[in-house]
Amino acid sequence: MARTIVLALGGNAITKAQEKGTRDEQWSNIKSTCQYIVALAKEGHRIVITHGNGPQVGNLLRKNEIAQEVVPPMPLDVCVSNTQGSLGYAICQSLGNYLAKAGLSIPVASVITQVVVDAHDPAFQHPTKFVGSFFSEAEAAQLMAEKGFTMKEDSGRGWRRVVPSPEPKFIVEKDVIRNLLDAGTIVVAAGGGGIPVVENADGLIGIEAVIDKDMAGQLLANEVDADAFFLLTEVERVCINFGRPGQRQLEKMTVAEAREYQAEGQFPAGSMGPKVEAAIRFVSTGNDRQAVIVALEKASLALTGQSGTVITA
Amino acid sequence: MARTIVLALGGNAITKAQEKGTRDEQWSNIKSTCQYIVALAKEGHRIVITHGNGPQVGNLLRKNEIAQEVVPPMPLDVCVSNTQGSLGYAICQSLGNYLAKAGLSIPVASVITQVVVDAHDPAFQHPTKFVGSFFSEAEAAQLMAEKGFTMKEDSGRGWRRVVPSPEPKFIVEKDVIRNLLDAGTIVVAAGGGGIPVVENADGLIGIEAVIDKDMAGQLLANEVDADAFFLLTEVERVCINFGRPGQRQLEKMTVAEAREYQAEGQFPAGSMGPKVEAAIRFVSTGNDRQAVIVALEKASLALTGQSGTVITA
Repeated sequence: MARTIVLALGGNAITKAQEKGTRDEQWSNIKSTCQYIVALAKEGHRIVITHGNGPQVGNLLRKNEIAQEVVPPMPLDVCVSNTQGSLGYAICQSLGNYLAKAGLSIPVASVITQVVVDAHDPAFQHPTKFVGSFFSEAEAAQLMAEKGFTMKEDSGRGWRRVVPSPEPKFIVEKDVIRNLLDAGTIVVAAGGGGIPVVENADGLIGIEAVIDKDMAGQLLANEVDADAFFLLTEVERVCINFGRPGQRQLEKMTVAEAREYQAEGQFPAGSMGPKVEAAIRFVSTGNDRQAVIVALEKASLALTGQSGTVITA
Repeated sequence: MARTIVLALGGNAITKAQEKGTRDEQWSNIKSTCQYIVALAKEGHRIVITHGNGPQVGNLLRKNEIAQEVVPPMPLDVCVSNTQGSLGYAICQSLGNYLAKAGLSIPVASVITQVVVDAHDPAFQHPTKFVGSFFSEAEAAQLMAEKGFTMKEDSGRGWRRVVPSPEPKFIVEKDVIRNLLDAGTIVVAAGGGGIPVVENADGLIGIEAVIDKDMAGQLLANEVDADAFFLLTEVERVCINFGRPGQRQLEKMTVAEAREYQAEGQFPAGSMGPKVEAAIRFVSTGNDRQAVIVALEKASLALTGQSGTVITA
């Protein structure tokens, strides 16, 4: 049965950990990713794709820093919009090519997406999201003084800028995304968690922040009334006691079970934590909704319960 | 009567000649531009917006060059897609804010747009379009040897890279753009002339080229079956004998008259030439089609013949 599925692609679907993020690397990774998406399209599902942009926005911020004496640097909201452009392009082109080869005439469109956050979100008082280059402590002190950045030491690798990661409240382009989906289009939207904007007296305006892509993805999944929200990652299933005695892969969990594991501290903040939280929020909004945390290459198996961790209300 | 209008915004609608292209400069220019577009939206017209990206893609290419030892540079197609992201964002946000203030609930969407060119277009043998930074003759010689760039002297200002400017053949996302327009959306598309792609055995692939935004605009206007194609510029009307004795503003011209003026060399290649050619092509494709070359701030007056140069078949 045809379902509406929102796919959230992780950064590894675009740039792998050891890569520099060249065009060839990005295109090669995105091509592999798109092959797996074609399998879902063949089954007739309505598909919305969202994606991370960590390595790509990091590279743009680095270019900003290095070229700042010559070319005006752009703030984070503009950099996110740049990556929605380039990654949207890459996904539309690669997926379009595979769909054509498979004889499927399904249009693919990438929509520039603004996501509203609350200007009073407590995250603005406690920036937590690392972005951009690593600096020495002395350089970091200078940047904090000169640019008003907040900077923190990142896991022994050096000092980096931290920006707020507020909750997504509202997807500005939601009607546009729904229209396209209803017209049979595969839609790429809310890339990089969406362009973060707040409301002021003049309307919407960009803000220096990064929205978690899985949180934006679950909001997107709600807005398009999705049946399933797939959080695509590098592991086949969510584990409890990960890397410890008693490690166990989970085939399914209810919201109540997931909340219990969360309380036990089973899911680390930087990796599985936000995915499980996003899954819980999505399935809590309606009956018969499924969230699936699964490896990219197993996504189509997950539809029939043969892979992944399925989270239900 | 409500009409379908394609607006092609020139570079000056986004970054003015003397500006560096900071975020504040861009936003301020785009806001002014969007005020004039709201006037058209109020009258109930169906609107598609396309835009240039010269200064913005130039800045990205400069960042590429300056940061190339640290961050992998991106080719032109990816840079164009970056500017579609950021300028699409800026236009959607600014126009959306003005529409909301005017009490109009019209969605605005920016669609990442690929434009197919012919790999055998003669332009690939004769690159003509200047992009990026100025270099000395010695630096230019080095870049030509190292990167295989074609470089030429640009009007006494230094050496610059030149890239091919092939003819746009086909807009990949045309059905998507039409769908959105039919659903009452103001669509931003084919920014910077569109992302240049060619067809090969695997499907579509990006290529190092720049498509003229007015030529892409006329193709877009054809694809959405527009009634009118507005080429927005800095002057109120097209002139003949510009800057010479006998200078005269034209209120209208037919294709036959425009072809005569072209043959006399009235319209310079770098500025009014492509606009007049794009106007001719658009009106030649169907009866009752109008192209209007007009100053941005006079666009709504042009609808009733009170400003601009109207070109008809």
